[in-house]
Amino acid sequence: MVVNNTKANTPPPPAAAMGTEHHRAINMPAMGVERHKVSAPERRTTCQALRQRLAEVFFPDDPLHRFKNQPPAKKLVLALQYFFPIFDWGSQYSLRLLRSDAVAGLTIASLAIPQGISYAKLANLPPIIGLYSSFVPPLIYALLGSSRDLAVGPVSIASLVMGSMLREAVAPEQQPIVYLQLAFTATFFAGLFQASLGFLRLGFMVDFLSKATLTGFMGGAAVIVSLQQLKGLLGIVHFTTHMGFVDVMASVVKRHAEWEWQTIVMGVAFLAVLLGTRQISARNPRLFWVSAAAPLSSVIISTVISYLCRGHAISIIGDLPRGVNPPSMNMLAFSGPFVALSIKTGIMTGILSLTEGIAVGRTFASINNYAVDGNKEMMAIGVMNMAGSCASCYVTTGSFSRSAVNYSAGCKTAVSNIVMAAAVLVTLLFLMPLFHYTPNVILSAIIITAVVGLIDVRGAARLWKVDKLDFLACLAAFLGVLLVSVQVGLALAVGISLFKVLLQVTRPNTVVMGRIPGTQSFRNMAQYKDAVKVPSFLVVGVESAIYFANSTYLVERIMRYLREEEEGGQGVKCVVLDMGAVAAIDTSGLDALAELKRVLDKRGVELVLANPVASVTERMYSSVVGDAFGSDRIFFSVAEAVAAAPHKTTMP
Amino acid sequence: MVVNNTKANTPPPPAAAMGTEHHRAINMPAMGVERHKVSAPERRTTCQALRQRLAEVFFPDDPLHRFKNQPPAKKLVLALQYFFPIFDWGSQYSLRLLRSDAVAGLTIASLAIPQGISYAKLANLPPIIGLYSSFVPPLIYALLGSSRDLAVGPVSIASLVMGSMLREAVAPEQQPIVYLQLAFTATFFAGLFQASLGFLRLGFMVDFLSKATLTGFMGGAAVIVSLQQLKGLLGIVHFTTHMGFVDVMASVVKRHAEWEWQTIVMGVAFLAVLLGTRQISARNPRLFWVSAAAPLSSVIISTVISYLCRGHAISIIGDLPRGVNPPSMNMLAFSGPFVALSIKTGIMTGILSLTEGIAVGRTFASINNYAVDGNKEMMAIGVMNMAGSCASCYVTTGSFSRSAVNYSAGCKTAVSNIVMAAAVLVTLLFLMPLFHYTPNVILSAIIITAVVGLIDVRGAARLWKVDKLDFLACLAAFLGVLLVSVQVGLALAVGISLFKVLLQVTRPNTVVMGRIPGTQSFRNMAQYKDAVKVPSFLVVGVESAIYFANSTYLVERIMRYLREEEEGGQGVKCVVLDMGAVAAIDTSGLDALAELKRVLDKRGVELVLANPVASVTERMYSSVVGDAFGSDRIFFSVAEAVAAAPHKTTMP
Repeated sequence: MVVNNTKANTPPPPAAAMGTEHHRAINMPAMGVERHKVSAPERRTTCQALRQRLAEVFFPDDPLHRFKNQPPAKKLVLALQYFFPIFDWGSQYSLRLLRSDAVAGLTIASLAIPQGISYAKLANLPPIIGLYSSFVPPLIYALLGSSRDLAVGPVSIASLVMGSMLREAVAPEQQPIVYLQLAFTATFFAGLFQASLGFLRLGFMVDFLSKATLTGFMGGAAVIVSLQQLKGLLGIVHFTTHMGFVDVMASVVKRHAEWEWQTIVMGVAFLAVLLGTRQISARNPRLFWVSAAAPLSSVIISTVISYLCRGHAISIIGDLPRGVNPPSMNMLAFSGPFVALSIKTGIMTGILSLTEGIAVGRTFASINNYAVDGNKEMMAIGVMNMAGSCASCYVTTGSFSRSAVNYSAGCKTAVSNIVMAAAVLVTLLFLMPLFHYTPNVILSAIIITAVVGLIDVRGAARLWKVDKLDFLACLAAFLGVLLVSVQVGLALAVGISLFKVLLQVTRPNTVVMGRIPGTQSFRNMAQYKDAVKVPSFLVVGVESAIYFANSTYLVERIMRYLREEEEGGQGVKCVVLDMGAVAAIDTSGLDALAELKRVLDKRGVELVLANPVASVTERMYSSVVGDAFGSDRIFFSVAEAVAAAPHKTTMP
Repeated sequence: MVVNNTKANTPPPPAAAMGTEHHRAINMPAMGVERHKVSAPERRTTCQALRQRLAEVFFPDDPLHRFKNQPPAKKLVLALQYFFPIFDWGSQYSLRLLRSDAVAGLTIASLAIPQGISYAKLANLPPIIGLYSSFVPPLIYALLGSSRDLAVGPVSIASLVMGSMLREAVAPEQQPIVYLQLAFTATFFAGLFQASLGFLRLGFMVDFLSKATLTGFMGGAAVIVSLQQLKGLLGIVHFTTHMGFVDVMASVVKRHAEWEWQTIVMGVAFLAVLLGTRQISARNPRLFWVSAAAPLSSVIISTVISYLCRGHAISIIGDLPRGVNPPSMNMLAFSGPFVALSIKTGIMTGILSLTEGIAVGRTFASINNYAVDGNKEMMAIGVMNMAGSCASCYVTTGSFSRSAVNYSAGCKTAVSNIVMAAAVLVTLLFLMPLFHYTPNVILSAIIITAVVGLIDVRGAARLWKVDKLDFLACLAAFLGVLLVSVQVGLALAVGISLFKVLLQVTRPNTVVMGRIPGTQSFRNMAQYKDAVKVPSFLVVGVESAIYFANSTYLVERIMRYLREEEEGGQGVKCVVLDMGAVAAIDTSGLDALAELKRVLDKRGVELVLANPVASVTERMYSSVVGDAFGSDRIFFSVAEAVAAAPHKTTMP
């Protein structure tokens, strides 16, 4: 056991533990109390400080740590493995792994094909684009991506947002080619934006979409998407192109003459089957294949029925071109009237698809206990979309639902994406004519089944229980999407998220603290009922960095505590600020402290500080404020401050 | 002395203090250690919680506390005094106070008249508007304002911004009436915006302009304004209307043929005198009247010279209309092509003038030890500007330089503003013809002298010393104004301020902590060199609220600490998170904690939490995360966590 010879700076020992010792603390000469020095961290040069700060902002994960102390040849291999993870796991790839991956790949292909066709329709694009998008991007992701479980392809939310944003400028029915150009260009910008975020290591910007607002936004979008499917489900031909809840419901009612009973019967029947299989898989995860196989089975069965009843009113997909993705580089339009819209749409869909892709990657990485590098993933997804935009693909990312199936089906590596792409290739080359008679109603049923999972009622209930403000944000985003528009909903989601952060910054918590009997610890009196106030002291804990944005508030708040204390008949002779939770202070904050000291001095009240953290101590000592307080007014802990302060009378 | 009978929950006492007692702590059965319970605050209903939260956001100063427990009649009087502070101090007003106020009022009038004329020219407005603006607004402020020292009138920065923003749409030389309409309308919107901020108690929005960026912005604006005065100072007739540094310097050089030696001699001479008197007053505050009297004296002397030398080339103000403010309500344009510009200009100048006015009010209130209610002041300034816009005034606020003179001259109440307004009234009614021969060059000299004080080199140096990021923000705002435009500079200032806040939120400090020998305290090991690491424990302090915006980062950062620790050959069996500085946690943060626990569990590392604050404890206990940790993994302090954790081996 190490007994330190630090008797000199021993603090007053806890009161209840030792009766006689306690007297010593009380009777100690007030200003001469032995105490610990509050040290500042080692001085760094400006350059060092700045470099450390930037490293923390841009390289918090220290991505180069694996390159440390390695010979150059090894470094090259590591770099190659870093940029192309396939070289990392590829060398250990085995037949056993391939078998697992093949099963998983075929399973997600059976899901990806009907979903691809459906989601393309959600984006007002020809169905074939959805299949193209399920072929090239998965191959590129298999090369670049670091997630083993991500199943890549089109997703519902990004498709919906792209569709609704582009439709505002160009009607896809009247100008299909212009619309297609716009979609590819937006996809290119989405990829460029995603890759830049990753390359510039600004991945943390994605974190600004809080989970709460995303829950609301996704729920609202899911409802909107489902309502849109009423067109297909009811067989309505002339449907509103607006997205709002009111418009859609009005259109449904107004066009009741167009409702078709055959379509409705088929739609409701298959929807019931699809939702039923979803329930089965949800209750018993081992039966995941039931819901995974359901969409393709439904497509096949409904196509057969539709073929047998051909000539009837049920609307069908019709002819689809055969063959692999045609190049579409010549369709990217970097000038002309719609460039601004393309960029805007690209950024919006880029952020949304990135958020989904990164979240999915992280979720499954943490389940399987491997690491996914966020910035690296962003580059992979970005490059995938840029390449996709040149090969007739629209925005793709890792889909939550298909990745879950991929994982359940036992995928081991990104090879499952390659298998899926191969299956899609076979479909594109040989099976396209089979989809001719596929009824549109089945696509609507598939979309509804897919997006219903995005409505997270339990998550919203949990928000309500834990954090009312988060719930309000969620609700606002939900209603914004539902009643106004997808963009307004998204803007609300981001705006509320930012506002919440700023609110927390401008109105930080402050607490009045008391001593916990029998300890040297001071704690929030509202939290610990047994905490005892020290007479003639006001101990205030500030639970936030002190900035320009809250320094005025903090001074006012502390003065109010003092006023309330004095109105309560308690004379205060010393205010102790517990700075333990003040993570940082800026120049305005320092000025505010000096100001507070000056005001309190005029009232004959002492102001002392306790337990400043490293960065705050450093700043205090390097500014005039530190001089104003002097080291005899800055204490190691609240207990020492209370013990040493000149106005001390009695202790509890 | 109160000796608590809390022996049952006494913590392990400090090590160095008592040798034998220490053994007891070590030999204690690990899981059965006596410890303090972490309590959550009392449960509140949703309504109570929300009300408390909103009260803290909008009424942090508890403005109604003075109305508590008062009879209704008294309440009415108090309300009247609240809205019209003149009723508060008016009843105690005395002749002695009037004498002081009269001296101060006349002193600031001698400053306000030449500055009013000069600043109006800065906003491209007729000089007379500057005098009008020094008459009506001070009277209204005297009724409504709560500051005793504020000297109200036009100010340089707001004049500059209004001039440069409006000139972009309308040339004041070609369309003087339209320009005037725009200026009055913008003033109205500025007032409306200011009053609304105050009424909605959103005054804290003003705090988002950090002092650092304001220093840069003001410095840049001062340089720009000074450069613009080269036109008057050199006697150039055809000067650029652009504001940028490059344009102005190019224009000065290109137009050297227009330079006039008489103007230059007069300008340089008076500028030297004005700057000299400024120095004298700065060195000896008791001689404040030297610099206060200098502008008016310069105007009088230069006018006499100019009259004597009439017919020479020196450019003069010319005829000014006599009489009080004409009504201008009919000139407010709430429709037409320029409404958007008026609103934008109004908001910009509104924010800037509010920032100056509030800062001035607070500064002098704190010197004289009285309180100024920020939201109330905003309403006063807003109403003053709305009224002003109907009486031929443009944007006004409390001027820093004139308020300082007001204070030095011994003003006691807002009556000094009334005296000043009376002096301006006399000038408007009888003395206007005297300004006919006032040379424009003297106005330029007065403006330069006034704005030079805004260049705060010492403040910038202090920023560099204390906070490099603040300095960068300051420099960016300065260069933005100087090289691009006033608006870009302002946008940069606000943008950088916000970015800094967000950066702090996304990349909070985390520190590795060790025990300070001889205490129960754990502190940052980088700050306290004598802190000792507890073997097989990793104690990490998180110095920030845990939000959606930083939860991913924090998990990654803690995992990196663990990796570094293990690579350093130190086995870690338990991670202790010191939550004392975590002021809040949201649902994403809770999820992140659960996630971290899961990942660490897989590695066989224990995760325990220490000292959560009230709001965090409340949330933990009301969510599944609390259940995951259970109360036996949440500790009162780091010391207790280390003492109780099952993997404890030895202690330092």
